[in-house]
Amino acid sequence: MDLVLGIDGGGTGCRAALASATGDILGRGRGGPANIRTDLAGACENIVEAARLAFAEAGRDPALIGTAGAVLGLAGANVGDYKQRLQAMLPFRNSRIENDSLISLEGALGEHDGAIAALGTGTVYLARQKGHLRPVGGWGFQIGDLGSGARIGRDLLQETLLVHDKVHAGTPLADIMLERFNRDPSDIVEFTTAAKPGDYGAFAPMVFEHAAKGDALGQKLVERAVADVEETLAVFDLAPTERLCLLGGLAGLYAPLLSKRYRAIMHPPLQDALGGAVAMAARIFGKAGGGHG
Amino acid sequence: MDLVLGIDGGGTGCRAALASATGDILGRGRGGPANIRTDLAGACENIVEAARLAFAEAGRDPALIGTAGAVLGLAGANVGDYKQRLQAMLPFRNSRIENDSLISLEGALGEHDGAIAALGTGTVYLARQKGHLRPVGGWGFQIGDLGSGARIGRDLLQETLLVHDKVHAGTPLADIMLERFNRDPSDIVEFTTAAKPGDYGAFAPMVFEHAAKGDALGQKLVERAVADVEETLAVFDLAPTERLCLLGGLAGLYAPLLSKRYRAIMHPPLQDALGGAVAMAARIFGKAGGGHG
Repeated sequence: MDLVLGIDGGGTGCRAALASATGDILGRGRGGPANIRTDLAGACENIVEAARLAFAEAGRDPALIGTAGAVLGLAGANVGDYKQRLQAMLPFRNSRIENDSLISLEGALGEHDGAIAALGTGTVYLARQKGHLRPVGGWGFQIGDLGSGARIGRDLLQETLLVHDKVHAGTPLADIMLERFNRDPSDIVEFTTAAKPGDYGAFAPMVFEHAAKGDALGQKLVERAVADVEETLAVFDLAPTERLCLLGGLAGLYAPLLSKRYRAIMHPPLQDALGGAVAMAARIFGKAGGGHG
Repeated sequence: MDLVLGIDGGGTGCRAALASATGDILGRGRGGPANIRTDLAGACENIVEAARLAFAEAGRDPALIGTAGAVLGLAGANVGDYKQRLQAMLPFRNSRIENDSLISLEGALGEHDGAIAALGTGTVYLARQKGHLRPVGGWGFQIGDLGSGARIGRDLLQETLLVHDKVHAGTPLADIMLERFNRDPSDIVEFTTAAKPGDYGAFAPMVFEHAAKGDALGQKLVERAVADVEETLAVFDLAPTERLCLLGGLAGLYAPLLSKRYRAIMHPPLQDALGGAVAMAARIFGKAGGGHG
């Protein structure tokens, strides 16, 4: 029987699942970071380690990893030539390397047409419609990622300064923020000198929470973020028969706020990204008895 | 006769002017950077050097700088205890250290009440009304400086990505930007990883230029920037008898675009910041024959 591997890798770690040719998962394994842009050799080692652990958990000899066809969804695989270089290093019989958003979409939508919107610290969108893939966004919070936690948090700090300067009227949310920074604008500016997207994004849930309580500032920021997300979704012109899956840490906060048109086609993801990689691997390398890497 | 010094210092250099007790300038001098936050001792040396050169140009013995009362307008003097520490190091008979925006206002408005709006790579505002000083903004482009060149440039790059992703409709300005970055969003994102405020701000004049030609994107960005500037000016509630001076690299581009209310009270600056420092020095240390430092 042919074995296939699904692998989901990114900057914090990678996960592998060994499955039968029909996609039934037999074993799982975890490995260290798969940062193909900053440490290609290390990423390759961690991916192989996760695959070997999946073989071991399935009661198979890890020395046989070279017999499996693998689908890898890796953050950053759409940039530069890392994909080609990694492909040449991997020990699997066949390796298909895709961007992480594709295995997320495969997991979330299965065979359905539609789109995923990953709404977390950043935002990135991918649609698959009649076999055509369309990625949108994901350019980082500095000049992109509208509607992301990072952008909502950054906007909140900006508004806090405007309230401090009395350019905008205060609200309970603004007051909480001013208190948090000792009512000193220098402290807010100081925060931004070292803040990473996740540091800004940490404020986002609070914005949604205060918006729900009727805070005018919270509502303004959430309304803007929802409008940004919907403006992007409009690009896909999703049909009523297509599906929309929201993913990421803010998915649950956005879900009830999107307009009826989108709520009507919203579905929870069928599987996670690793499940999507396994399903792709079974489709590509399982049924046809091997495929071509 | 008492001598007074006016000094205008910032990160790129400092200028000194020696003047009579009535404010007539006798000589000028230049020195290196006066970055009191990053190199207090070096700033002090450069300030003294500029003062000595001003004495020399006036045909006075530079050894006599200790006899003059000085007003120094220095960037960053409103933060931390640098001001107190520098004051203890300076050799002048009396030293009054102020933030650079105050000497700009003194120079621009003279004895008049009103406000200055410094509109350049960043934005910062200062009003003086019935003896009361009110600073607004100047928090940096990351979460402040609305209407600044840096913010306009950053917004332009964001819009360029949205046009690339077909979220927003294209315009000639967006097309020029896409061409400039080889129609590759990664190139735009790459630019932002190292971009300083001035790098973003370098795009601002082009935005005004295209807005004037009717470019829809240029107009949207300029309208937003003008609205941001006017929203801040509204804080001062300027009377028809008060003055508004626009300063900074974008002043000439903004001037014709502000609403009639502001155009009606707009005046060119009476003097530059160094002239403002000299006028303050004459007022404080000249007429009264010394004053108290």
